[in-house]
Amino acid sequence: MKDDITRIRFDQNGLIPAVVQDADTGEVLTVAYMNEESVQKSVETKETWFWSRSRNELWHKGETSGNTQRIVEMKLDCDQDALVVRVLPNGPACHTGERSCFYETFFQNDEAAAAEQPGSILSKLERLIAE
Amino acid sequence: MKDDITRIRFDQNGLIPAVVQDADTGEVLTVAYMNEESVQKSVETKETWFWSRSRNELWHKGETSGNTQRIVEMKLDCDQDALVVRVLPNGPACHTGERSCFYETFFQNDEAAAAEQPGSILSKLERLIAE
Repeated sequence: MKDDITRIRFDQNGLIPAVVQDADTGEVLTVAYMNEESVQKSVETKETWFWSRSRNELWHKGETSGNTQRIVEMKLDCDQDALVVRVLPNGPACHTGERSCFYETFFQNDEAAAAEQPGSILSKLERLIAE
Repeated sequence: MKDDITRIRFDQNGLIPAVVQDADTGEVLTVAYMNEESVQKSVETKETWFWSRSRNELWHKGETSGNTQRIVEMKLDCDQDALVVRVLPNGPACHTGERSCFYETFFQNDEAAAAEQPGSILSKLERLIAE
């Protein structure tokens, strides 16, 4: 059964990591955490709600900034302890104003980058056009 | 400075979540966890190494299955507590044989799905061609 919250295996803190991904470009925007209530709110409102581990409170993404995220689909992984949330973002995902929180390259393998399939150029072009 | 491991903020268990993403298609394959040693091994070998929380051991993805993941790029998020690892996978990511661990739809918003940009059809076509 779909959106059956009992299927989710929350961790010892009652949380599950949620990978927020741009539904159009495939770009990973944010990794945030959801508790049971934020999963329910997300399904009800079709916008992302998280649990803020630093502020210890429920957090409706975009509530103050306006940069809400409209949910297209939520996927659960094979061991039910991680979510992918595909969204249509209404503005930047990051509090810094960057589109994605993952703007910092930690390691780059130039050889493998050169071996990426030529098809992926299409994706990149598409991402550029979308901007 | 790039690949400076001291920049990473590991959690109280010495771990950081790593979102493994197909570099060509953008598909999220797996969410796994890395400790300091697995980050180092990943950078050195340019293949993914994780920390298995269930087996409590270092784990070289594909060591037994052959389904290794060649690293193209590792990205760190704005608060340095999550990684995106873009890879060229050498076979399915999931132990079930599925390409991605996220094969289960938990929630779908058909209205928003219809609002996805037409451009994304190109991505989907491209993904199909790549298969």
